[in-house]
Amino acid sequence: MKFLSLAVLFVLMAFTQTTRKKVIFFGDSITQAGVQPTGYITKVGEMATRDKLADGYEFIGAGIGGNKIYDLYLRMDDDVLAKSPDIVIVYIGVNDVWHKRSLGTGTDYDKFEKFYNAVVKKLTDKGIKVILATPAVIGERTDYSNELDGDLNRYSALIRSIAEKSKLQLVDLRKAFLDYSKANNPENKEQGILTTDRVHLNEKGNELVASEMWKAIRNAK
Amino acid sequence: MKFLSLAVLFVLMAFTQTTRKKVIFFGDSITQAGVQPTGYITKVGEMATRDKLADGYEFIGAGIGGNKIYDLYLRMDDDVLAKSPDIVIVYIGVNDVWHKRSLGTGTDYDKFEKFYNAVVKKLTDKGIKVILATPAVIGERTDYSNELDGDLNRYSALIRSIAEKSKLQLVDLRKAFLDYSKANNPENKEQGILTTDRVHLNEKGNELVASEMWKAIRNAK
Amino acid sequence: MKFLSLAVLFVLMAFTQTTRKKVIFFGDSITQAGVQPTGYITKVGEMATRDKLADGYEFIGAGIGGNKIYDLYLRMDDDVLAKSPDIVIVYIGVNDVWHKRSLGTGTDYDKFEKFYNAVVKKLTDKGIKVILATPAVIGERTDYSNELDGDLNRYSALIRSIAEKSKLQLVDLRKAFLDYSKANNPENKEQGILTTDRVHLNEKGNELVASEMWKAIRNAK
Amino acid sequence: MKFLSLAVLFVLMAFTQTTRKKVIFFGDSITQAGVQPTGYITKVGEMATRDKLADGYEFIGAGIGGNKIYDLYLRMDDDVLAKSPDIVIVYIGVNDVWHKRSLGTGTDYDKFEKFYNAVVKKLTDKGIKVILATPAVIGERTDYSNELDGDLNRYSALIRSIAEKSKLQLVDLRKAFLDYSKANNPENKEQGILTTDRVHLNEKGNELVASEMWKAIRNAK
Repeated sequence: MKFLSLAVLFVLMAFTQTTRKKVIFFGDSITQAGVQPTGYITKVGEMATRDKLADGYEFIGAGIGGNKIYDLYLRMDDDVLAKSPDIVIVYIGVNDVWHKRSLGTGTDYDKFEKFYNAVVKKLTDKGIKVILATPAVIGERTDYSNELDGDLNRYSALIRSIAEKSKLQLVDLRKAFLDYSKANNPENKEQGILTTDRVHLNEKGNELVASEMWKAIRNAK
Repeated sequence: MKFLSLAVLFVLMAFTQTTRKKVIFFGDSITQAGVQPTGYITKVGEMATRDKLADGYEFIGAGIGGNKIYDLYLRMDDDVLAKSPDIVIVYIGVNDVWHKRSLGTGTDYDKFEKFYNAVVKKLTDKGIKVILATPAVIGERTDYSNELDGDLNRYSALIRSIAEKSKLQLVDLRKAFLDYSKANNPENKEQGILTTDRVHLNEKGNELVASEMWKAIRNAK
Repeated sequence: MKFLSLAVLFVLMAFTQTTRKKVIFFGDSITQAGVQPTGYITKVGEMATRDKLADGYEFIGAGIGGNKIYDLYLRMDDDVLAKSPDIVIVYIGVNDVWHKRSLGTGTDYDKFEKFYNAVVKKLTDKGIKVILATPAVIGERTDYSNELDGDLNRYSALIRSIAEKSKLQLVDLRKAFLDYSKANNPENKEQGILTTDRVHLNEKGNELVASEMWKAIRNAK
Repeated sequence: MKFLSLAVLFVLMAFTQTTRKKVIFFGDSITQAGVQPTGYITKVGEMATRDKLADGYEFIGAGIGGNKIYDLYLRMDDDVLAKSPDIVIVYIGVNDVWHKRSLGTGTDYDKFEKFYNAVVKKLTDKGIKVILATPAVIGERTDYSNELDGDLNRYSALIRSIAEKSKLQLVDLRKAFLDYSKANNPENKEQGILTTDRVHLNEKGNELVASEMWKAIRNAK
């Protein structure tokens, strides 16, 4: 009896393992924090459990603080391709814009496009499903008066157009955050709605990102 | 006969001089170019003539390329107060925002407010009528994807609020330009609608600025 | 007996008051911290006491964090001239250079010169003795490989030339710091020699500044 | 007779082709201009001819304006490796530093190191001889008062240390330019000594670069 059940278990495990989809979240400090207890990746896991789909997925965070698109390109062999994922969510762009201001080392718009396309191509060439996410916010004012709104809008529009051209799923966090803030930030505050510091996610921010991500992951065929 | 007419002329001139309102346009390179044959200040003069009000005004350009709010503060004794104007239009802010990006020498938001208020106070303390103008554009895309739209919106909102608090007339060029571009820039171009180079005015731009300015000047009691 | 001693005291006080030189240190956060227990202004006071000259001076800190040359210009009426000082030490320039990088709001070289000369003129016009100080360091590496060394050298050279042309005393902190670091920073560290954080003074830094300042103050006739 | 000499020629050509060393100059706009009639690569060719070594080398320019180290990394497969060179001269760094100031899109020091090492590794892994060059100048003043001297010194020191660790030949243009300017720029001019515009080479600049490069190429065993 005992042996039998173990055997069944092994069969089930083997079955489970072969059908579990490996999902890698590929990004910057926001994604690095995503694996923490209240982080968005943890929350995606909880949503999968809630929806009784936890056995179908393995969620892996691959975020490094300060990363820009070309950092992803440089480290994608080691940190992504080597793990043979089924799905990769590319969630990048905040530092490409922000570091223009804070460090003088942001990413030119045309270079951003080049490297972004190179990252997408390397992934899709391997048959990996790719989901793209727009950078959410650097400052939560809703009247486009955050210092870097201009570039965030422009780089996000580029990501949307890459998703469209390449027929990839899009998680439009920039739009989702603006929609949320327009409804929930009547005082036009710079932070504290979905972020702690204009950029990094608070509890509500992590929930919003997780829920948008989870929708896209479930959708990925 | 000859003497008589000359005498009449002198009387008329004296009369004219005492009633002519001296209007100084105080600003940056946009205003420096305003006195050229097709510049906005020249056009304001033409509008005054068209409206048969040319005798009531003297229009003086006091724009210097690259100026920011604190440059206006430093040179206002020599370039404005020494000329005893009746009306001063403060048209500044583009370089305060732009030079953050291009030269690293823009103006902090809080310092902009301080110097702006100091300029306004010095003028109103002398009984001069002050008209404020918002900086129009750095890039003419209409979806808030010009790199510096965030700061331009923020600094413009500040000028609007100073105008409101101080009960000063406002020439809201930023709003006027956006309204115009939304109707006339369907391809979302960065320049060529009202500017030649994202910032400096083309013929249509000079017309729009002149017409908004002239409305405010006529209104100034 | 009691009345007599009180009378003597009043006479002494009156005498002291009329001969005490009022010295204002006019600057940024480094000077703001200068009045703290181990700050450089406090140490100048201790040096005066040590040299039995404390009765001859009153030392006043007028430093505000983040200040650049044009902030000094804007607030000099209230914070300096209103106090009728005998000696003013202008110690500014770090933020004019640094904020180019960190905030995009540094000061153009030509504007720095203009405002610097305007500050000096306003002070000397009142008969105040003016002492100029060069900005010491942003980073303590000794091989000119600190990111902002180029501008610090250039703005310091300008201050030196203003001092020479205007025959004003110079406290050349930039030179003093480099000389000290060349002798005491064999590992070419970026901080920790005379600063805590590349910019703000540690104990040794405060001592060096105080000693250079005190030399100049004693020299001021 | 005619057939015989042609046959000899073919043999000689075949022989020449197999022994010619293919040298690729891999860089930015300075290298892009290097293939022009008076450019430094053209001059290297002339020096090879002068030294009767022209048959031993093929010189190829692979410079693209605005390139930074990560652009080289992105395009090295197509523009360098695909051509199977014997020697590659990596001459990059000016834009990595300069664009911090002019565009906000320079390269972080640690990322510069990472990508630089990645470029070198990819080349040496293929058995290609690699020669490294330091970025010469952004401004020719000799007292370290050019705005970007700090970073240029730092990034150049890094390249020197990579050359040393990896036992690669170094063409230390930064040192060569400074040495030349100290001897030939008594008025401490910002440009016009070896550059036309603080960065791009004039005739003398092209000669100096060519002569330093040619020395290193001849040396490469």
